[in-house]
Parts: sequence; C-alpha cells; structure tokens
Amino acid sequence: MKQFISTADVPSVPRLVDIALEYKKNPFKDRALGQDKTLGMIFLNPSLRTRLSTQVAAKNLGMEPIVFNIDKEGWQLEMNDGVIMNGNTSEHVKEAAAVMGQYFDILAIRTFPGLKNKEEDYTEKYINQFIKYAGVPVVSLESATLHPLQSLTDVITIKERWNEPRKPKVVMTWAPHVKALPQAVPNSFAQWINAWGEADFVITHPEGYELDEKFTNGARIEYNQEEALKDADFVYVKNWSSYRDYGKITCTDNSWMVDNEKLKNTNNAKVMHCLPVRRNVVIADEVLDGPNSIVIPEAGNRVWAAQAVLSEILKG
Amino acid sequence: MKQFISTADVPSVPRLVDIALEYKKNPFKDRALGQDKTLGMIFLNPSLRTRLSTQVAAKNLGMEPIVFNIDKEGWQLEMNDGVIMNGNTSEHVKEAAAVMGQYFDILAIRTFPGLKNKEEDYTEKYINQFIKYAGVPVVSLESATLHPLQSLTDVITIKERWNEPRKPKVVMTWAPHVKALPQAVPNSFAQWINAWGEADFVITHPEGYELDEKFTNGARIEYNQEEALKDADFVYVKNWSSYRDYGKITCTDNSWMVDNEKLKNTNNAKVMHCLPVRRNVVIADEVLDGPNSIVIPEAGNRVWAAQAVLSEILKG
Amino acid sequence: MKQFISTADVPSVPRLVDIALEYKKNPFKDRALGQDKTLGMIFLNPSLRTRLSTQVAAKNLGMEPIVFNIDKEGWQLEMNDGVIMNGNTSEHVKEAAAVMGQYFDILAIRTFPGLKNKEEDYTEKYINQFIKYAGVPVVSLESATLHPLQSLTDVITIKERWNEPRKPKVVMTWAPHVKALPQAVPNSFAQWINAWGEADFVITHPEGYELDEKFTNGARIEYNQEEALKDADFVYVKNWSSYRDYGKITCTDNSWMVDNEKLKNTNNAKVMHCLPVRRNVVIADEVLDGPNSIVIPEAGNRVWAAQAVLSEILKG
Repeated sequence: MKQFISTADVPSVPRLVDIALEYKKNPFKDRALGQDKTLGMIFLNPSLRTRLSTQVAAKNLGMEPIVFNIDKEGWQLEMNDGVIMNGNTSEHVKEAAAVMGQYFDILAIRTFPGLKNKEEDYTEKYINQFIKYAGVPVVSLESATLHPLQSLTDVITIKERWNEPRKPKVVMTWAPHVKALPQAVPNSFAQWINAWGEADFVITHPEGYELDEKFTNGARIEYNQEEALKDADFVYVKNWSSYRDYGKITCTDNSWMVDNEKLKNTNNAKVMHCLPVRRNVVIADEVLDGPNSIVIPEAGNRVWAAQAVLSEILKG
Repeated sequence: MKQFISTADVPSVPRLVDIALEYKKNPFKDRALGQDKTLGMIFLNPSLRTRLSTQVAAKNLGMEPIVFNIDKEGWQLEMNDGVIMNGNTSEHVKEAAAVMGQYFDILAIRTFPGLKNKEEDYTEKYINQFIKYAGVPVVSLESATLHPLQSLTDVITIKERWNEPRKPKVVMTWAPHVKALPQAVPNSFAQWINAWGEADFVITHPEGYELDEKFTNGARIEYNQEEALKDADFVYVKNWSSYRDYGKITCTDNSWMVDNEKLKNTNNAKVMHCLPVRRNVVIADEVLDGPNSIVIPEAGNRVWAAQAVLSEILKG
Repeated sequence: MKQFISTADVPSVPRLVDIALEYKKNPFKDRALGQDKTLGMIFLNPSLRTRLSTQVAAKNLGMEPIVFNIDKEGWQLEMNDGVIMNGNTSEHVKEAAAVMGQYFDILAIRTFPGLKNKEEDYTEKYINQFIKYAGVPVVSLESATLHPLQSLTDVITIKERWNEPRKPKVVMTWAPHVKALPQAVPNSFAQWINAWGEADFVITHPEGYELDEKFTNGARIEYNQEEALKDADFVYVKNWSSYRDYGKITCTDNSWMVDNEKLKNTNNAKVMHCLPVRRNVVIADEVLDGPNSIVIPEAGNRVWAAQAVLSEILKG
C-alpha cells in the first residue's frame, strides 16, 4: 500500500480487515517491522481516539510515533500556491510537508474541512498538498471528506460480530446535533461498506441531507427512519451537516435521536458511533448504557485498523 | 496494587517506600516489567514534575508513556450523568474513560478541584468517574483533594535522611500565597505521614485553615507557628486555601512566610516544598538558596515514587 | 563536549561536521550510545524543524526525547533573582532548571529574545540561567542571539556540496519580512562560517542592519546586494530586525527579495534558508521551486547536526 486516504488505496478491503483481526489476536507479532522507522503524526485539529490508537498501533509495530500539534506548537500553513505571504501564514505547505518528509518514514495528518467552500473541501486540497510534497507515504487521520481509519474500524467491528450466511442489514442513520459537523465519517462509512460488499446497506436521513453520490452510490436511501431501521442488524448513528446546502444545519428535528423505542423493530441491532457522541442529543443514555451499544469495543478496534494500515505501508 | 489514589490503596507504605529507594539505587533493574505495556497520562491541568518524572519512571520500567493534554488537544468532558449534552461538553467521561481503557494498560490522570463546590471536590467526582469507567488501573497524578505521588515522594525524602532511633519531628506549616490553592498537597501529606506512622507530626496554620480531619486525624494542630517549629527536624511548607470557608483566602499575613529566622529554634530542620514555589512569598530566597533546603532532591525523588507505584500495579 | 550554545563549545567545527556526515551515511551505528538516557526538550517558543529533527536524532542514538511545551503545558517562569514572586510567574528558573536536571541527562531549550531589551537579550540571560542551574549539559534549540544547530547544519550542507580546491564564496543576504525577527540565525551563521574557516564569506544588507561584530568579524560587509552576489557559490537568505535600532524594522525595500534575476551573476549559486520562509516576500516562488534551491535537503540535514551534537555530549 502506498498511502491511505480512501478505499481506492486499498487492494482488498476484506484482506485488510483480516490483517487487522490477526493483530487483535497477536498485537506484537510484527514488533520488528517498524524498527528504526518513524511515524510523524501531524494534527491541524483535535483528536482523541485517532491520536491515541495510532500511537499505540505504531508502538506495537516497533515504530516510533512523533506527535506534532502544528496548529498549537508550530504555526499556520499557507495552502495556496503563488501567494505573496505577507499575512498570517508563516510557512507554505510545500516546505512544511517536504521537510517533514525528510524526518519521517510515514506522515499521518488530520485536517478538517472549513465547511464553507464545498469545492475546496471536496477536492481535498489540504491533504492533497501534503501528499504532493511530502515525498513519503501519507496516512489520513481524517481529512475534509473522509475518515478511513474510522471506517476500516467499523467494517472490522461488524465483521467480527457477524457469522450468519446472509448479509447483515446495516443502517446508517442521521441524528441531530448542536453543531455543523463534517460529512467525513458518513461519506467514508458509505464508501467502505460499499467497497466491502458484504452488507445490505441502507442510509436514512431527513430530505436535504443527501450525501455525495460518489460515496453512497450502491446504498438504498430511505427518508423514513422507522422504515429504514426495520430488521436492522447494525445501526450506525451519525450527525452531519448538509452537503446540498453546504455546511448548514437544515433540520433540528430531535425525533431523529436514537433511543430504545427506535430499536424495537430492528433485529436486536447493535448500535455503533464513531465518538465523541453527545448523549441525549444524538443517542439516548438508555441505548449507550444498554446491551445494544458496541461503541466502546468499536473504539478499541481503532488500534488494529491503524496497525493493519501502518504495517501494509511499511511492507510497501 | 489495583489503583493509586490514596493510602487506602497501598498495602504497606513502608514497603512501598523501600521499593522506591531500591529503584533509586538501580533504576533499570525492572526494565522488562513494562515491555509492551502502555501508560496513558491524561492532563486536565498543567504539570511539570508529575508529568516529567512519571514519563521517566515509565521508561525506566520499559513501559511506553503516552501523554494527552485532553484540555488542549481534545475537548471538554461531561462529568454529570443524565445530561442532555447540547452545551459546551463534547464527550461524556463514560465514553472517554472507557475508550482510553481500551488503549492503555494503566491510566494516569491529573484533575484539579474547582474550589467552588466543596462536596463535588471532596467526593472526588472527576477521578472517580474515570475509575468507574476506565476498566484498567487508575493512577492519580493529583486529584481534587489528594496528591499521592507527591506525598509518597515526601515520605521517601524524609526516610532517606533520617537514621536516628527517635521519630523525626515533622512540621507542616501553612504559608502565604497570592492565589487560592487546592488542599490536595497538605491533605495528602497529612494522610501519608499518618499512614507511615514513623514521625512526630505537627501541623501549624492560622485559625480558619483547619484541614479535613479525615486526613489530619492523629496530627497535633498548633496555631502558633513559632511554637510548632520548635525542635522540628523537617519543615514542610505549603499554602492552601480555606477548607472551612471553602476555597477562600482568609489570611494574608505575610509573617507566615518561612525565612531563616523561622528556622532558628528548629533542630537545623530540612525544608521541603512540593514546588512550584513562589520565592519571597511562601519561602524566602535565603532558605531556598541555603543549606537547609532539600526541595531539589525532593523533586528528584518523584521519579522513584512513580516507578514504585507503576511497578506494583504492573505486578498486579 | 560539555554543552552546545555556540562555536566556543566545539573543540573542532570541521570534526563535528564530519561526525554528522558519518551519521547521515549510517544513522543507527550508535544506537546503544543513548540507552537509558533521556533528553528533555523544553520549548518556550514554537518550533518545527528543530523540534522534530532533534527528536529523530535522539531516537537514532537510542535516547529517549521527552518534549515539554513549558509555555503551554506548564506555567510562566521567573528569570530574575531576588524578586518577590507575587505576580504572573509561578516558578523560578532556579527550581525549574534544577528539577529538570534531576530528570534528564541532557536538557535542550528553545527560548526567543524579547527584542526589546538589547542587553538582556545579548547577555543570553534566559539560557544562561538554565545553564547555571540545570546541573546537566544544556543544548540550545535556539536562544536569544544564536541558533547553533541550524548553523552547524548549514556548514554541513555547504561542505557536502563543495569539492573544489578553492574556497566557496558564501554570501548571506538580508531580505524583507513583515515581522521583526531575531538576529539569532544570521549571528550564528556568521559565527559558524567564520569558525569553520573554509569559505570566502560576504554579508550584504541595507545600511542600519549591521550585526554584532562579535559574530561577523572576519566577514566582508557589502551594502550593494548586486555587487555582493557576484560569483557567489552559495546564497544564504535571511531576514533580521535591526541590531543598531534594536528590534526595529528600518527597511521595507522589497527589491531585496531574492528572485532568479538576483542569481544571474552568481556562479549558479545554491540558495539556502533556515525556514520557515515567507514565499514571494523573502524568496520568490521561482527560486524556491527551481533547481538552485537546496532548502529541503538543508532542513533534512538538521537530523545529522543534532545527532552529532547529542552523541558528542553523551560521549562527554
């Protein structure tokens, strides 16, 4: 594997899932693989799970993770070409990425979308600039439109809980939130579930919250949440802001929150969320504290997803 | 040892002190103990000694410390149950603690009191929420009411300097400060000196600064500083805000500052402080720069205290 | 080597350059040298290259780097003696440095000048306080008036590109900037090139930008940039604020920016800069994106400079 930004970089999603599950059984079997290798982890935005699980994954492979909060410990980067840099940006990504490429064997980056300029966000300008200039493999720790380490984790989490011959019904449902959030997690979940190909996949959300078809194509879209959730085996809950009316909150209907009542007509569905989750806004306490929630082991699987990705890149 | 929050978690204080002093002689003898183990160090507040000494202690044991300034690099945690999370908190401690418990073998946390709500602080709500949900052993890097790594260090520091058959006279004296500080260090020092049982222990402070008897019980309280300091072998200097008039500064009498004059009637007492110390407010330059101060080697002992605690938890 | 603040600490600059170039060929040959040793890296100011390259260098030597952003993760230090500390500073450097000296085998520190008080800056008050109280070798990660890891890197970068019997002509040229910057990099470059002694060294800048002669003595000063650049083999570009009119910007003449036109009469000169560089203010895009720029491999060499310095200090 040469980089890890989207499913397009992955020769086989099922194989990558298997590699991750092998690390879960035997975390230290490739301890020598990362010897004398460094992973630069560059944060332009906050992170908890991605940050900590990737550090642990790197150490499991004997690789040294070096974390750099460039937004707080460094300075603001210029992302646009040809600019006269007499403003607030102190360094161009051309230099910053290339220099970090001199220090690290793999460069991992987290960068959120601005949610103001759809084209800028959806061309993945920021992470693509890093890819262009780093000169070493780049791993996304979440970019403007995708969060592949999360989605690989989600596929792993479904797969390890499903032994039946039929495909599981996986329903991704929009839920309310107080802030305008990126579409990265739902875009990415759709892309990965589609690329995996082992699920009956349904997406439900209020009208106006349609995601970019480039990612959802192949999934059934159902505007009626109750109808969508019927017989679900896995319910993936997530808020996102509108893609059509870009970056806006166009629905504040709290009845979309997932509570036990919503799970009644499911097939005793397991409930997933990427976290952090706002309790009693996105998902009710009774669900998160009840037997259907698998959000904690889901987050735990982040380690094995990151370890699979880093190992495949180290193997080249 | 299952966790490290207070003396109640320690089977034998003298034994733990001995373990620490053995590490001081031979820092790397248990280098294999922490192999493939990770220590999550979560900071909700600033730290210098605790942070750096615990990192060094973990490395000495072959354990990987991973530091996370959750207040700056992550987001604000919700600590209350049943809340509709539509405000400033982005993640509930139920998820945050449980997820970090998935990544680390031991979770170490620093969290200060608010000094506004005595009951909330003294029930140790924050650290108890972490303990409840982490699922792995929790080590206090200072909590609302106690600072056990500091106090273990202080006992070590006294013990290694005392060879006489009689018990040393240890006097903890209140001193002035410009800010309202927690009672964690004095509470904890009292608890540990009492649990150690090898000192003649006196506490002196202005009236109104009485600490919670739960911690000081067994010590003699003396409101006259001069009287208290007579024949002292060790003088432990520390400011704290009022416990009775909770979190308030009720005395600004600068004559409580410790200078050489104050040491005249002591038994050439060694002077201790947890640091950071405001010079010429809490302790005079002449003391800190003179032969009686042991604050630097005291701070150095933080490594061995942390190493003893981590090793005992790793051993189970 | 006992410390690394300026050329005065280096027994032989050419020998140190050779050591660095040996590490570049064989980064892991001294992996055992730093075993069980810790490097404390203390930042009072932002950093990218210095921070990341020094971490990598320490790991290459088997040494553990522990990074501490004391300005953000700790608190403000008092640098003046005899002060009654009832203001904004929470800890005196006497304690902070001495305590960190208890935890680390080597202490590395970055501290910028205030650019307000020339005498305070040029006596290197801050880093000298650390040296005085740390009790262990101190490495400068850039101080008020010098940046020795950068300058050692620069000499390495010139040396590895020069095989002719004659000395290369090295020209350091002032360039415009929007902010008042320290003189640390140009002072240090002058000091190191002079100490190296293998270059024909010219400095060019507008009148009023003369640097402290203590560092530049031995170099030719030429106020005409075009004249200075003639036949240059290496052009070192850097902005600095006035030393004479201390910390002020006294020239805003954009014609000092280095573009391809400026390189015409050079000997196809290689262009260097310490980075970060403001594009199209200090150096034009056409130069930085063209074949004459060596700023990226120059930054890459920071690793070998740091590794040479740390190894020499570890060897005592």
